[in-house]
Amino acid sequence: MNVNGKKYRTIWMENDNARSVFIIDQRHLPHQFIIEQLSSSQSVWNAIHDMHVRGAGLIGATAGYGMYLAALEASEKIFMEDLTRAGDYLKSSRPTAKNLAWAVDRVLETAKSGKTVEEKREQIHQCAMDIADEDAAFCRQIGEHGKEIIRKIAARKNGQPVNILTHCNAGWLAFVDYGSATAPIYAAHKEGIHLHVWVDETRPWNQGARLTAWELQQEKVPCTLIADNAGGHLMQQGEVDLVLVGTDRTTHTGDVANKIGTYLKALAAHDNNIPFYVALPSSTFDWELNSGRDIPIEVRSGDEILQVSGLTDTGCIEKVRIAEQSTQALNYVFDVTPARLIQGLITERGITAANKEAIHAMFPEK
Amino acid sequence: MNVNGKKYRTIWMENDNARSVFIIDQRHLPHQFIIEQLSSSQSVWNAIHDMHVRGAGLIGATAGYGMYLAALEASEKIFMEDLTRAGDYLKSSRPTAKNLAWAVDRVLETAKSGKTVEEKREQIHQCAMDIADEDAAFCRQIGEHGKEIIRKIAARKNGQPVNILTHCNAGWLAFVDYGSATAPIYAAHKEGIHLHVWVDETRPWNQGARLTAWELQQEKVPCTLIADNAGGHLMQQGEVDLVLVGTDRTTHTGDVANKIGTYLKALAAHDNNIPFYVALPSSTFDWELNSGRDIPIEVRSGDEILQVSGLTDTGCIEKVRIAEQSTQALNYVFDVTPARLIQGLITERGITAANKEAIHAMFPEK
Repeated sequence: MNVNGKKYRTIWMENDNARSVFIIDQRHLPHQFIIEQLSSSQSVWNAIHDMHVRGAGLIGATAGYGMYLAALEASEKIFMEDLTRAGDYLKSSRPTAKNLAWAVDRVLETAKSGKTVEEKREQIHQCAMDIADEDAAFCRQIGEHGKEIIRKIAARKNGQPVNILTHCNAGWLAFVDYGSATAPIYAAHKEGIHLHVWVDETRPWNQGARLTAWELQQEKVPCTLIADNAGGHLMQQGEVDLVLVGTDRTTHTGDVANKIGTYLKALAAHDNNIPFYVALPSSTFDWELNSGRDIPIEVRSGDEILQVSGLTDTGCIEKVRIAEQSTQALNYVFDVTPARLIQGLITERGITAANKEAIHAMFPEK
Repeated sequence: MNVNGKKYRTIWMENDNARSVFIIDQRHLPHQFIIEQLSSSQSVWNAIHDMHVRGAGLIGATAGYGMYLAALEASEKIFMEDLTRAGDYLKSSRPTAKNLAWAVDRVLETAKSGKTVEEKREQIHQCAMDIADEDAAFCRQIGEHGKEIIRKIAARKNGQPVNILTHCNAGWLAFVDYGSATAPIYAAHKEGIHLHVWVDETRPWNQGARLTAWELQQEKVPCTLIADNAGGHLMQQGEVDLVLVGTDRTTHTGDVANKIGTYLKALAAHDNNIPFYVALPSSTFDWELNSGRDIPIEVRSGDEILQVSGLTDTGCIEKVRIAEQSTQALNYVFDVTPARLIQGLITERGITAANKEAIHAMFPEK
């Protein structure tokens, strides 16, 4: 998508023989647009763990490239052993995101087939690029399917904008391109469908305020930032036509782990008869867990709540502490929205109900 | 309650003949404890409008003293006319808070009975003090009634702490003393009942992070700060036994306007079978409105969302902007929780169901 009119993906290699990968360091957005070069599996681990990159698809794609860098680092003698160890290491950077483990396992599977280390490295390189390309392609398809939901709502709004509420950033910054929840928004906007997005600021990391508002504005999509607390009131007032969110892991029974606070919006949508859709490429499905209750929920440092980063009047990026020094904070970063509150899942293959039968009918090979 | 071990109310006069009133300027908490002297009805309007003081009961008490200052300012010739005009002016400082209009009208009613202007001024002075004293007394009684709810939960927790979630600040800082939602907590804690409070940070003004956490810590009540987004997950995990909040206006049919985001917590409590109680002195009741939908909901500046105030590493209080300069924000500051989601209302007279019959049975004079 566009940054100041120039097309970007969120992760790329500069040439085919490169021994490093480039990312946008999202910690500095929207105040600074900084590109970071990652040259080791260790720096990839850091980039995922410390959230230079974040978001379901982008974590997966970054892990894929991380495995390629690990393949370059691995000893020729114990190549698969080293690579497996690197995979476990990368998986440990974020526990909830399903795409992370999925990408690592896909690379490991690919590596099995190469005969020589050189061949394996080439296949891993190709696999990492495939993961990124597929992510972008799948998100584009999610956009095409999801656009139809927006079009139907627009048809009964007589020219009034379709008001879509989104939580966190499931935008192109969370994937390689297009995004999951934003893909239908971008696709509909491109077709001239009149819409407006309510952007939850998404405490504590402010993904909405910092990333979603920024990328929507870069694409000239009308949007308004709101406190996470405001969504229920807006729904009660008829100011929300549709809720669209992403997910970090979705059980094959339809339960959705997404950014903390998603469950509250799903409850409010349900209470106000507003459709609540979750957009995801199939790499986000967990085909083993039968219940969202079994999804491990990451706990991050309480400092993410206690300290807020932003721009001062003098143009410096500074952190300010919002509570007393002695205040303790607990920071669960995901919650689980049960399938019963979800109208549908928008995948690259189409829209499915959030239940085991429907999901397996759409992905019969699983 | 205590500030560094010294007892304070949130508003007071230094002597009976004073022509000014003192408040704690809550904009600077918890980083600075600043006492402000208000000497005119204009400065009272500013203090309420710009949230030097806030919270249902304290807005009422401040308005009462504001009317006393207005009585000192009023012309002897057109005293009641001036006073009525001052009342309308003070009422315009915050639209949602019921206690504000209630306190102004109570003073105006009182002023009618005095024969001379001197007599009226004396009666108004007494009325302002009565409003403050009653607020403290009613909150203390709310504490006694609400404590029994906590005691019952404690009895089945076998020594494990009772986990109470609260939103915004309905603490002593929001009233003259004790608080509404916090009064049962302070009363139970004083009796040695083992409890722990989850404090919603309460975006955008961060009343929870800045005020509730601070005042609970001053009283040595165990508490943990959480993002507003986290309450639903904690409830799903069985980490919340009780939700206790305050209210800025409660219809006599049981609908509750409280800080934006309260409705989301009520939905989550309902979905997880957790009791959701609202604590209020009867001055918060609106005896005219039949539906919460008719309560005017204040909209404040979007800058309250876009700019976060806190303490820098170097000990300065600074504001940082969390989004891009061009990002627009919309800031509704209250929402309405429908009576159907409320287990009970804790008033100075006891606990009542949130419906018209029960409320009128408890307040038959209305």
